[in-house]
Amino acid sequence: MSTAKATLKDVAERAGVSSATISRALNDPDKVAADTRAKINAAILELGYTPNFGARVLASNRTGTVGAVIPTLSNAIFASGVQAFQEVLDENGITLLIATTDFDPEKELYQVRQLLAHGAAGLLLVGADRPWTTLDFIEKHGVPHVLGWCAHADSDQTCVGFDNAAAAYDATQRVLMQGHRRIAMISGECASNDRAQARLDGVRRAISDHGRGAALLSVTEAKYLLQMGAEAFVTAYSTRPHPTAIICGNDVLAAGAMIQAREMGLDIPGDISIVGFDDIGLARAVHPGLTTVRVPQSEMGRQAAEQLLAKISGETPPPNPELQTEFIMRGTLAPPKQDIGLR
Amino acid sequence: MSTAKATLKDVAERAGVSSATISRALNDPDKVAADTRAKINAAILELGYTPNFGARVLASNRTGTVGAVIPTLSNAIFASGVQAFQEVLDENGITLLIATTDFDPEKELYQVRQLLAHGAAGLLLVGADRPWTTLDFIEKHGVPHVLGWCAHADSDQTCVGFDNAAAAYDATQRVLMQGHRRIAMISGECASNDRAQARLDGVRRAISDHGRGAALLSVTEAKYLLQMGAEAFVTAYSTRPHPTAIICGNDVLAAGAMIQAREMGLDIPGDISIVGFDDIGLARAVHPGLTTVRVPQSEMGRQAAEQLLAKISGETPPPNPELQTEFIMRGTLAPPKQDIGLR
Repeated sequence: MSTAKATLKDVAERAGVSSATISRALNDPDKVAADTRAKINAAILELGYTPNFGARVLASNRTGTVGAVIPTLSNAIFASGVQAFQEVLDENGITLLIATTDFDPEKELYQVRQLLAHGAAGLLLVGADRPWTTLDFIEKHGVPHVLGWCAHADSDQTCVGFDNAAAAYDATQRVLMQGHRRIAMISGECASNDRAQARLDGVRRAISDHGRGAALLSVTEAKYLLQMGAEAFVTAYSTRPHPTAIICGNDVLAAGAMIQAREMGLDIPGDISIVGFDDIGLARAVHPGLTTVRVPQSEMGRQAAEQLLAKISGETPPPNPELQTEFIMRGTLAPPKQDIGLR
Repeated sequence: MSTAKATLKDVAERAGVSSATISRALNDPDKVAADTRAKINAAILELGYTPNFGARVLASNRTGTVGAVIPTLSNAIFASGVQAFQEVLDENGITLLIATTDFDPEKELYQVRQLLAHGAAGLLLVGADRPWTTLDFIEKHGVPHVLGWCAHADSDQTCVGFDNAAAAYDATQRVLMQGHRRIAMISGECASNDRAQARLDGVRRAISDHGRGAALLSVTEAKYLLQMGAEAFVTAYSTRPHPTAIICGNDVLAAGAMIQAREMGLDIPGDISIVGFDDIGLARAVHPGLTTVRVPQSEMGRQAAEQLLAKISGETPPPNPELQTEFIMRGTLAPPKQDIGLR
């Protein structure tokens, strides 16, 4: 990350120590050897490093900690976004503490309470679907927060994400353009998951807008686990006539569906096309490569951190960004065998 | 998890509320509605629930928090172990805060300091390879810790894990039994990663113990990323004669190697056998399924939590357990085409 302005990371590289040591030197110098401090100060002078968000946050908050409350660690669905979020915090000498909710809103509130009790200076939450009491609680504590993985241009919340519904709409159009008319969806569990709901809505709308005999034969909700994707495939494929394409709420469900399809002796994409969502590593690892929707996880994580640091520093953050998703054509989407009524 | 003794989770189910609500009711009752408290108390009486580790920890520690310091969130290498660790804490009303180190020992110490500053009542660390200063710092704070993902029966540390070297030794024997003699390894980066080092040692030892023309043609170290596994495969396969089998330090490297092998037009396992380590979801998702070593992640996570809770509660934890790994034969290991000197 080369930026015009010298970051704490630049100082660390120049001084040949870690960012951790730098912020230790900034926070409690006594903990750092004199010669190390000398090296650091030399580097600060050379680079003209000036106290940045991080330093200001640290000034405002003894613990210099930010919290991320994410649904799960499974399958690294949120990993690269959180990792990018953490990188920016690291550059600014802020520690990230992560807590998980297993998609349970009550547990999310509990984790938020814990992180605030631990002096978190700001919070990253996932999505915008939660009881008002949670944000109310956060606001009462005067702690800034940002919402990731969702986009609400009109929202008074700071959202750093992408339009799940639009991305799913676009992906479904690609499936329709291939000539598929009998489509099924394996969706994530929509209860208190607005990202899953939005992806489902996008698929529904694209199919009804298209008309011309296109039908969503079934929607099967499943937990984001390989095994659940495999089981959901059995249900999704069981309709008569069979679907020729199955759109999945994320790559994990899609990879599970691929395993099951193969066990049922189905050729992918010859007999059944499968489309995922997220473009996590799994999508490149399966064979054929999974056709999916790439979400801007790293960009989102970085921008979420920058917005949060701005808010913590009392600056007005820029307006909610419009992050773009990208349809990634790989090997699991192809025209259906018997092309029924493509026009 | 059905246990003889009623857990906080059982009480939660009986009372029809979340574990979070229960421990809230235990910690600051005023925060919980009277009728909810009544339901909870009824459930506690019905089930004969008695204050457990969790309650005692909460009594001893205002924040009721435990910290896990893990190398990375990428590719969910540590996810299921941490998830199981967290489940036990949840059952006991303890919050888990997670911090990552990107495999940097100095960053690990920094994260440890942060978690202790935040009142963590105990710590889960990964592996046994770190500067003595880190454990010294933890002991000075009188906070118990357990080490996961490693086994040292003789250690005075509480280790809850498995024998990485023995598991790699066994996996390598399976490869040799298939008739492979020209073997290469794609290893994780061994610097300050004793698990990676132990896996490499196990492979080396199995090959030298076997003799009979068996040779480790090359060892390529790579970061645990798909792309790095793909790049390492190019190097590992480039020797003349080519290796007929490549043993990888984990499943992510193996999946990356599979992608690259395929791009080079090699058939798996016809032209090249590939073996992974960990048996994360990825291993089942790739095709053919990845032959790998299953590590007892969930069992390890649960036992690590139980040992840590015991130590926090001032009980002497049971001796370091011997957790077993299992060789999982799937589709990526087969005899080499030209069987050279199998006996």
